Amino acid sequence: MRQAFHELSLSTRGRGLYDFTAEVAAWIRQGKYQNGLVTLHLRHTSASLLIQENADPDVRVDLENFFKRLVPDGDRLFIHTCEGADDMPAHIRTALTTVNLSLPLHQGRLALGTWQGIYLWEHRQAPHTRQVVLHFIGE
Amino acid sequence: MRQAFHELSLSTRGRGLYDFTAEVAAWIRQGKYQNGLVTLHLRHTSASLLIQENADPDVRVDLENFFKRLVPDGDRLFIHTCEGADDMPAHIRTALTTVNLSLPLHQGRLALGTWQGIYLWEHRQAPHTRQVVLHFIGE
Amino acid sequence: MRQAFHELSLSTRGRGLYDFTAEVAAWIRQGKYQNGLVTLHLRHTSASLLIQENADPDVRVDLENFFKRLVPDGDRLFIHTCEGADDMPAHIRTALTTVNLSLPLHQGRLALGTWQGIYLWEHRQAPHTRQVVLHFIGE
Repeated sequence: MRQAFHELSLSTRGRGLYDFTAEVAAWIRQGKYQNGLVTLHLRHTSASLLIQENADPDVRVDLENFFKRLVPDGDRLFIHTCEGADDMPAHIRTALTTVNLSLPLHQGRLALGTWQGIYLWEHRQAPHTRQVVLHFIGE
Repeated sequence: MRQAFHELSLSTRGRGLYDFTAEVAAWIRQGKYQNGLVTLHLRHTSASLLIQENADPDVRVDLENFFKRLVPDGDRLFIHTCEGADDMPAHIRTALTTVNLSLPLHQGRLALGTWQGIYLWEHRQAPHTRQVVLHFIGE
Repeated sequence: MRQAFHELSLSTRGRGLYDFTAEVAAWIRQGKYQNGLVTLHLRHTSASLLIQENADPDVRVDLENFFKRLVPDGDRLFIHTCEGADDMPAHIRTALTTVNLSLPLHQGRLALGTWQGIYLWEHRQAPHTRQVVLHFIGE
């Protein structure tokens, strides 16, 4: 039984969903990890980790539009507005989703379904660099 | 320290919450797993895993009705409608909840509280078969 | 490779966010855990675990107010009202967030970002005592 740690640095071009399944898979391949548990932790409170459909890009458009309507930028309800109209909505969108994921790895393959991709969901309007910690325990 | 993998195939009769705590517990019992971490991963993007109240069935009725109101089927906002009026709402309901869970196992018992059950939440109207990958690491 | 289990008992003064990062860190320090995975599981269905901003307390005020508006106490939609107007909203708020978290531990430090704290989010109006199971696997 062994462990491994890694940190991915992902650049976003502002709000939206960014598929980084390939980066996670590349790290697993390079370490020759076979069977175990892979945990991803995003070190931010205004972006999320999300497992979602990787086929039709319209799904991402609709997800974005739904969350935009559910948690409107510039809502008068908010008092924490120091970084702008999208500041507090970004925190709420993060609370409504999650910042960590745990995926079984079996015979060198993540347990993802055929249509599942791993996304970084940037909730801020401006481009950001986001850190994701990867952890593996297994064989 | 050892590991084990399993895949449950769960049949749904359409939208609703399905308790499968017993299936998970049976797998743990059969493998005689005592202390460790149990991870569940659902391989779909239109259904969720949820830990919720297992006592009053009204809780499930209210959960369903709340989500029906929050993410209405056939909402004009959506462009991804290829599989019908409940297609995109199913993806959003999944994004608002989760597809993986990690539960400590201590002395052969999952760390669930007295009123907690493990549910598969089917978000599509039609019956589906859903795959849940189970992983154990421990002793 | 070793494991450890612990149970924290957290007292709340009613609805709100309670930072208990220090209690988790103290348990890690006392056990001299260095590298591994720390899992937290909350044994309730009317409170959540949340990783959120630990700087400006206004973020917590806004989160609370947003959820109050999204899932109103006493909503006529609900039939499960046996414990009062905040009973069913508490279950829904829990479904919209989560009850378990998994955090990598590297060189004795949790993988939390600078602005991330671990919160117990009490959703009931009355004070409660909440149990959080902690699990460590690693070295």
